[in-house]
Amino acid sequence: MVLAAVETGGTKVFCAVAERDNPHELVDTVRIPTRGPEETISHINAFLRKHDEMSGVDAVGVATFGPVDTDPQSSRYGWVLQSPKPGWQNVDLHACLDGLGAAPSAFITDVSGSLLGEHALGSARGMNNACYATIGTGVGVGILVEGRLISGHGTPELGHVPVRRHPHDDFPGLCVYHGDCLEGLASGPAVLARWGHPAQGQDIDIIGYYIAQLVVVGVLAVAPQRLVLGGGVSKTPGLIENVRAHAAQLLAGYLGADHPAQDPASGFVTPPALGDFAGIHGALELAQSLLD
Amino acid sequence: MVLAAVETGGTKVFCAVAERDNPHELVDTVRIPTRGPEETISHINAFLRKHDEMSGVDAVGVATFGPVDTDPQSSRYGWVLQSPKPGWQNVDLHACLDGLGAAPSAFITDVSGSLLGEHALGSARGMNNACYATIGTGVGVGILVEGRLISGHGTPELGHVPVRRHPHDDFPGLCVYHGDCLEGLASGPAVLARWGHPAQGQDIDIIGYYIAQLVVVGVLAVAPQRLVLGGGVSKTPGLIENVRAHAAQLLAGYLGADHPAQDPASGFVTPPALGDFAGIHGALELAQSLLD
Repeated sequence: MVLAAVETGGTKVFCAVAERDNPHELVDTVRIPTRGPEETISHINAFLRKHDEMSGVDAVGVATFGPVDTDPQSSRYGWVLQSPKPGWQNVDLHACLDGLGAAPSAFITDVSGSLLGEHALGSARGMNNACYATIGTGVGVGILVEGRLISGHGTPELGHVPVRRHPHDDFPGLCVYHGDCLEGLASGPAVLARWGHPAQGQDIDIIGYYIAQLVVVGVLAVAPQRLVLGGGVSKTPGLIENVRAHAAQLLAGYLGADHPAQDPASGFVTPPALGDFAGIHGALELAQSLLD
Repeated sequence: MVLAAVETGGTKVFCAVAERDNPHELVDTVRIPTRGPEETISHINAFLRKHDEMSGVDAVGVATFGPVDTDPQSSRYGWVLQSPKPGWQNVDLHACLDGLGAAPSAFITDVSGSLLGEHALGSARGMNNACYATIGTGVGVGILVEGRLISGHGTPELGHVPVRRHPHDDFPGLCVYHGDCLEGLASGPAVLARWGHPAQGQDIDIIGYYIAQLVVVGVLAVAPQRLVLGGGVSKTPGLIENVRAHAAQLLAGYLGADHPAQDPASGFVTPPALGDFAGIHGALELAQSLLD
């Protein structure tokens, strides 16, 4: 049996197929630039159709930028909703992906896809309580509780959590809704608008302090065993170490002496092991779950 | 079949039994002042033993103040751990409740108990994604995701989330770990230490602003359909309306026009329908779940 996966990102779409018996080996892949929905989706359909004609596709998992309706009970399941991406408002991805014929499909957010990938074979392997946070163009969080994604009725939106201000930061923030929420202060665009270049030197402490508050909120809310920190901003040299130190300081021993989030050396906050491949592997996991 | 329930609170213990077929009718109850563990537990055991001898008790649910180990896999499952209550450190409730004979038992936090009760027959009835926050001596939060408590590996500790300061509040906070976390600023003891009396007049806006941040974090983290607000501080006249208004303002329409957390009139943030009976009904639900 053949699984297909689609990961639609802000700048590119990644499609892959794999055998159900060996889902971690990508048999064929294609990368497509993300343009308007019509052009982009026609390329995705061409890839899916090719494989459906060759060997039949049995299920497809889709991890997509959003906001996306991930509630299977909703009449708009699989729709990209009020996306800031030009042309991508209210796009019914579910209906548009007709390259699959009758194969079942499922839809999750991009960050939930990355989380499932890291859970299956990356930094959160075997950890049924885990978070994946991406700090990039936006800030997104995926949450796994007892092996199940928080998805469906509502997806986590912790990227927009209110944060305490760093004493040396007077940037007003650029979230169109909240101004200086986490995303408004720590996303890639916020970093560039503030300094004109990636965070460096003492900038790191400002961004690290904000991201550490997300770590603290995640730990206090859903008790993950690990928090994977992905996205472009997270690759800033020295940032992850700063986040770990601030998180330990903010938690202040409250969780008991042996909680790894309070030990900066524990690896509790960790980069994704799969890098840019986390999402596509997560989408394959999702496809596989449709056949279980 | 007979269900038993025990709710241990900071000042009193509530015990009840009910028929499995009619679990919402409390057949017999007793209230015991919470003293030291030995005296208190002997009273609980006397109640349980009486019913076990009368008609047999088939399962018991325990909702307890904490911190309590709620991980059934843990060697300290059912222990009250580093409680601030005199004498209640490292008390193995599980072993001490021997009034039950061989009946199975399960342990959750007091606030998870209240959540299960409100979910079964109160303000969150039929809502499989819900939060219960208690603002009292401490601040605690219970979370239900797709009908399951976040419990076991770790329980939610959102009472200690960092919050933004209200501009008219210079109280340093009294959390022994974090100083001015939510609990340090908005618990009953914090209110009394700051003003010498319950919040009133303009005080309300300060406390309401902090509790609203908990609402926002809860909504963004786990997408509840309703958030029940219990505990002594929450009964302050005018407070819940203030919390609703601040939460709507902080969310700022981000969740889409029709999200009830953004409408102060929606009842999304709601008092417990069962009042002080939420916890005991939740403990009965827990007992029942052991027999399902």
